[in-house]
Amino acid sequence: MKSNLSLVALATLLLCPPGHAQTPEPVNDWKPAPSNQAGKQYPQVNSEGRVKFRIMAPKANSVGVSFRDSSPFTKGDDGAWTGYTRPLDDGFHYYTLNIDGAEVPDPNSQYFYGSSRWGSAVEVPAKDADFYALKNVPHGQLREIHYFAKSSNKQRHAFVYTPPGYDQNSRKRYPVLYLQHGAGEDETGWGHQGCAGWILDNLIAAGKVKPFIIAMENGGNPFAGGPRPTNAAPTMAGATNNAIAGPGGRAFNFSEFEQALLQDFVPFVDANFRTVANQRNRALAGLSMGGMQTRGIALAHLDTFSHIGVFSGGSIAVTNITDLAAFKKKVNLVFVSYGSRELGTNRVAGRGFGGDPRATTAALKAAGVNAVFYESPDTAHEWQSWRRSLHEFAPLLFQP
Amino acid sequence: MKSNLSLVALATLLLCPPGHAQTPEPVNDWKPAPSNQAGKQYPQVNSEGRVKFRIMAPKANSVGVSFRDSSPFTKGDDGAWTGYTRPLDDGFHYYTLNIDGAEVPDPNSQYFYGSSRWGSAVEVPAKDADFYALKNVPHGQLREIHYFAKSSNKQRHAFVYTPPGYDQNSRKRYPVLYLQHGAGEDETGWGHQGCAGWILDNLIAAGKVKPFIIAMENGGNPFAGGPRPTNAAPTMAGATNNAIAGPGGRAFNFSEFEQALLQDFVPFVDANFRTVANQRNRALAGLSMGGMQTRGIALAHLDTFSHIGVFSGGSIAVTNITDLAAFKKKVNLVFVSYGSRELGTNRVAGRGFGGDPRATTAALKAAGVNAVFYESPDTAHEWQSWRRSLHEFAPLLFQP
Repeated sequence: MKSNLSLVALATLLLCPPGHAQTPEPVNDWKPAPSNQAGKQYPQVNSEGRVKFRIMAPKANSVGVSFRDSSPFTKGDDGAWTGYTRPLDDGFHYYTLNIDGAEVPDPNSQYFYGSSRWGSAVEVPAKDADFYALKNVPHGQLREIHYFAKSSNKQRHAFVYTPPGYDQNSRKRYPVLYLQHGAGEDETGWGHQGCAGWILDNLIAAGKVKPFIIAMENGGNPFAGGPRPTNAAPTMAGATNNAIAGPGGRAFNFSEFEQALLQDFVPFVDANFRTVANQRNRALAGLSMGGMQTRGIALAHLDTFSHIGVFSGGSIAVTNITDLAAFKKKVNLVFVSYGSRELGTNRVAGRGFGGDPRATTAALKAAGVNAVFYESPDTAHEWQSWRRSLHEFAPLLFQP
Repeated sequence: MKSNLSLVALATLLLCPPGHAQTPEPVNDWKPAPSNQAGKQYPQVNSEGRVKFRIMAPKANSVGVSFRDSSPFTKGDDGAWTGYTRPLDDGFHYYTLNIDGAEVPDPNSQYFYGSSRWGSAVEVPAKDADFYALKNVPHGQLREIHYFAKSSNKQRHAFVYTPPGYDQNSRKRYPVLYLQHGAGEDETGWGHQGCAGWILDNLIAAGKVKPFIIAMENGGNPFAGGPRPTNAAPTMAGATNNAIAGPGGRAFNFSEFEQALLQDFVPFVDANFRTVANQRNRALAGLSMGGMQTRGIALAHLDTFSHIGVFSGGSIAVTNITDLAAFKKKVNLVFVSYGSRELGTNRVAGRGFGGDPRATTAALKAAGVNAVFYESPDTAHEWQSWRRSLHEFAPLLFQP
C-alpha cells in the first residue's frame, strides 16, 4: 500500500503543472510579526515563514506586495484585502505594498531605511533569534551624533554604540569597530534592523567578547537619484583601490566616504570617546557595499585598521596584497562571510565579487594570514546573514 | 472709481457662496519640505504655508489627504495625483494619505510617532525656525536607552540627551529635565519632531541656559486599543491626583507612568548619568497629556521636582495647592504655556483644562509663586507651540 501511495504522489507531482491551485494551504498558525507597530495584528507570520498582510482599502481595485511569488490579494466583505507570501528566509525583509498602482508603506509595520527609502519591513522570527534579542542584561547606549566635517564643510550624522559600563569607569578606554551598511541603506541600519547593540550586549553579558565601541557612519548611496556630481571631492591615497565594480558592473567610487571616514570620523570618535586610539585597536567592517568599502579602504590604510570584516561584499585574494609580509604584520584578522544561498558559483561570479570567497579566504589563510570564512546557513543577501556575521566576527576582535 | 471697485468686490463676496471655485490659486513658489525623505521633491510647501502632495497611483479612483479643507486631488496624464492644503500654521503637522479608502503613509515623507502610529508629517518652515535648526555649534548626544524596570518587571525604552561637553569633563554633574510627550505620542517625540537636542545645543552655544540633561520616557497612551486593564499597577501616594479628565471628559489614569518615573526612571538616570541628584536640580515638564501628568505627579512629589513646566496641558490654580507656604519653598518655577489659537475661552474650557490658564497663572504669581505664562503666537495644539515653549522654559531652569 505504502509504495502505491508514493507512486500516486509522484504521478501527481509529474502531471500537475505548478500554480496557485496546487499550492498547499498555508499552515494556520499565524502570529503578529515582531516588526509590527505596537498594537497592530498584521502582518502575521506562520511557522513556514510565510507573511500574511491585511490592509483596509474598501474602494481599491487591486492590492499587492513586493515579495515575488506571493498569493493574489483578495478583498473581504469588510473592505480589507489579504494576501500572503511564499515561505521566506528567517530574519528581516524590506517590502512595499501596491494599492492601485501606488507603491506605499504598510501602515501596520515599523519603518526602516533600506532600498533607498524609509519604508516597511517584516521580521520572520528565526530559530536563532536569541542572540539578537532584547534581554535583561546590562545594555550599552546607541548615541545619535551630529558633527561638523571640516574636510567637506558639512554637518554629518552618525551613531555610536558604547558598551555597558562605559559611563561607570571614566578611565577605561575601548577599541573601536567602524561598521558600515549596504547600498541603499544608511547609518541607521546596523543599530536598528541590524540589532548591533543587542548582539554586543548579549555577547558581553556572556563574557564572549572584549567590550568595544561601534561607530556607524553614512557610506553614501550610489543608487540615489542621478549621476554622481562631476565636482566630487578630491581623491585620496587609496582612492584608486576604491573604484570597484558593483552589482551589474556599475562602478562604485568610495573616495568621498574614504575621506569622511579617515579625515573626519575617526578623529572625531577618538576625540569624543574614550578609545584606544591606535591601529591595533581599530577594526573596519561592512556588509555588501560596506564590505567593498572595507576592503578598498582597509587595504589602502593598513596603518589605521588592523581587523577587517567583509560581509557579503567580496573577499581579499593574496593577489590583492602588495606586500604580504607587511600585511601579515599589520593585519590581525581578515573575516569574510556570506549567506549560504549567495554562494552558488554563478551568483557570486555574476556579482563581480571576484571568484569563490571560500577559496580566496582559504588561500589567504594558507599564505599565513589570520583569515576566517563564515557561511550563514539558509540565508541570502539579507540582514540575517549580517547579524550572524557580526555575532561570529565580534568574539575574534581585539584579542591579544 | 476706487470705491466702485470695492463695492463690486463686496457684492461678489456677499453673493458667491464659499467653495473651491472662489479659492484663489495658491502662490506658485513651492519648495520641497524639509521633512521629506532624502531626494524626494514632494510634498512641497509655498509661502502661504500650503502643502502640495504628489503621489503616483495610476489605477486609483480617488486620492486624498487628512488635512481638512484641502483641494480635491487630480490625476495627471502620468498617473500622478496632486492636491494641496489650506494655509497651515508654521511648524510640524501629522498627516495620512487616503488611496481608494486605504489610509497609508506618504512614501515621500519621513516618519514620526504621533496620532498613535508611525506615519507621515510635514514641516512648514517657520519664520523662527532658526532656534531649532541644526547648526555648526557643539552638539549634545541623543542616547537610546534600554533598562530593566523592577517595579513593573519589564524592559523599558527611553532617550537621554546629554549636553555638549558631557564626555569631556568626567567630574562635572548636571541638573535633569524630565520631559514628556503627548497622548498618542511616545518617547521619540521630543528628540525627533520636538528638536529638543538642537534647541538646547543652540541655547547652550549662545550662553542662554545652564547646560542640563533631558530625560524622556514613555508616558503611556490612553488612546491605544481597548479599555485599560483592570489589573493595573498598584496606586502610589500621588495617584489620586492623577485621575484627570482629558479631552472629551475621558479619564486619564497616570499611576502606571508615575510609578515608572519615580521608582525606576529617576533612579536609573541618577545611577547612570552624572546628575546632581536632588530636588533642586530636577525639573518635570510635558506637553498636552504630558503636561497633565507633570501637574499631577509634580504636585504629589514636591520633594522630587522643583521646576514644573505645563505646555498646552492645563495650569496650576492656587486652589490646587494644599500647603502654599511649603509649595513656595519647594517650587522654583511654574511655567505654563499655550498656543495662541488654543486660548479661545470655549476651547480651553471644552478641553477640561479648568479655566483660563493665563488667569490661574497670574493668580499663582500674585500669591507669591515664581509663575510664568507664555503664549506661542499664531499656533495651536501642535509641536511649534511646544518647541517654542521648551525654548522659553529652558533659560528659566536651575537658576540660582
